[in-house]
Amino acid sequence: MNEHEHEIPEIVIIRLPLYVRTLSELKLLNQITVSSQHLGNLLQTTPAQIRKDFSHFGKFGKQGRGYNIDYLLDELRQILNLNQKWNTCVVGIGNLGQAVINYHGFENEGYIIKAAFDISIPSNIANKDIVIKPISEMKSTIKKLNIKIGIVTVPAPDAQGVIDRLVESGIKAILNYAPMKPVLPKAIVCRNIDPILSLQSMSYYLNK
Amino acid sequence: MNEHEHEIPEIVIIRLPLYVRTLSELKLLNQITVSSQHLGNLLQTTPAQIRKDFSHFGKFGKQGRGYNIDYLLDELRQILNLNQKWNTCVVGIGNLGQAVINYHGFENEGYIIKAAFDISIPSNIANKDIVIKPISEMKSTIKKLNIKIGIVTVPAPDAQGVIDRLVESGIKAILNYAPMKPVLPKAIVCRNIDPILSLQSMSYYLNK
Repeated sequence: MNEHEHEIPEIVIIRLPLYVRTLSELKLLNQITVSSQHLGNLLQTTPAQIRKDFSHFGKFGKQGRGYNIDYLLDELRQILNLNQKWNTCVVGIGNLGQAVINYHGFENEGYIIKAAFDISIPSNIANKDIVIKPISEMKSTIKKLNIKIGIVTVPAPDAQGVIDRLVESGIKAILNYAPMKPVLPKAIVCRNIDPILSLQSMSYYLNK
Repeated sequence: MNEHEHEIPEIVIIRLPLYVRTLSELKLLNQITVSSQHLGNLLQTTPAQIRKDFSHFGKFGKQGRGYNIDYLLDELRQILNLNQKWNTCVVGIGNLGQAVINYHGFENEGYIIKAAFDISIPSNIANKDIVIKPISEMKSTIKKLNIKIGIVTVPAPDAQGVIDRLVESGIKAILNYAPMKPVLPKAIVCRNIDPILSLQSMSYYLNK
């Protein structure tokens, strides 16, 4: 499988968690196998697209028999490194940063918030299980706590500067809440939280 | 075009804003036409998928000539109702709600936050261009201000109750930041902001 990894388009990787979630739901319904046709129906994509996505990782199923859900889930979770914990940090302890810190959904999925940074530390930040430091101590803290993912919750004008510092500090993955498109070295992976695409896909239904 | 609308799968509608964004970027690069092959490359999907998505709305291009970007953009923006303003409200004025209220990206795209609701109104809420009311006045305020979209920023345990009230108040579209799966009448459209899928698609790159 490793020999193929460098060729896999990022958009395929982006779709894998959706497959994981859908397969997990099928598993909860006690289904044993699923066809690419059925999976395609659930995700409203073509069976060809699904087979093409999976083909990047080798063969997951036998022609005509469908995929074994348990096996496929295991494989996808392994490919995505979902069976281990990842340490993360939050940069920006304003309203949004505090909301992220207080949201336990990250932890439940194995993404542990270990530290939070800001230029100045708000005095009303409650004593938490996380390290709270000025941005000047970002690099040393990230190394010490083995943090791999940075979550950016500063305002848009500050985001690029913060992201540059995260990259300098050795961070390889960034979840960006700021409404801007970061400029990044090729080796860094970034996802932007984008409520606008969601809103735009809903207004379709509003003129009926 | 209207005769087809009831048949269009939601996942196709969810993809349309991505097409709009990609086409807008091509337009900025002064491109005039784009093939389904090229669009497929940019979005890492198959040309067949793109042609199938567009086929729901009639013919956008001529075989072998590609799509005219201006025309396609206009059509997609009209289909998605992106050429008009939509009034929205925020429910939940905690950290996350305040972050959403202070984020002007919604307004720039035509989604205007007109009101915010909570059970009790925080005393430190700055005087804004929006109406701030207790949840008990939600229904009347939503009608008076012609609000069509509700943005839910309450904690997960409170979200279903708030969403029920939004539906009772006549809201047809909900952007849900709470990490839960709302139960909704069929006529209501909902999008969940989901940072976990983004994180899961990044951890793929972290073991290299």
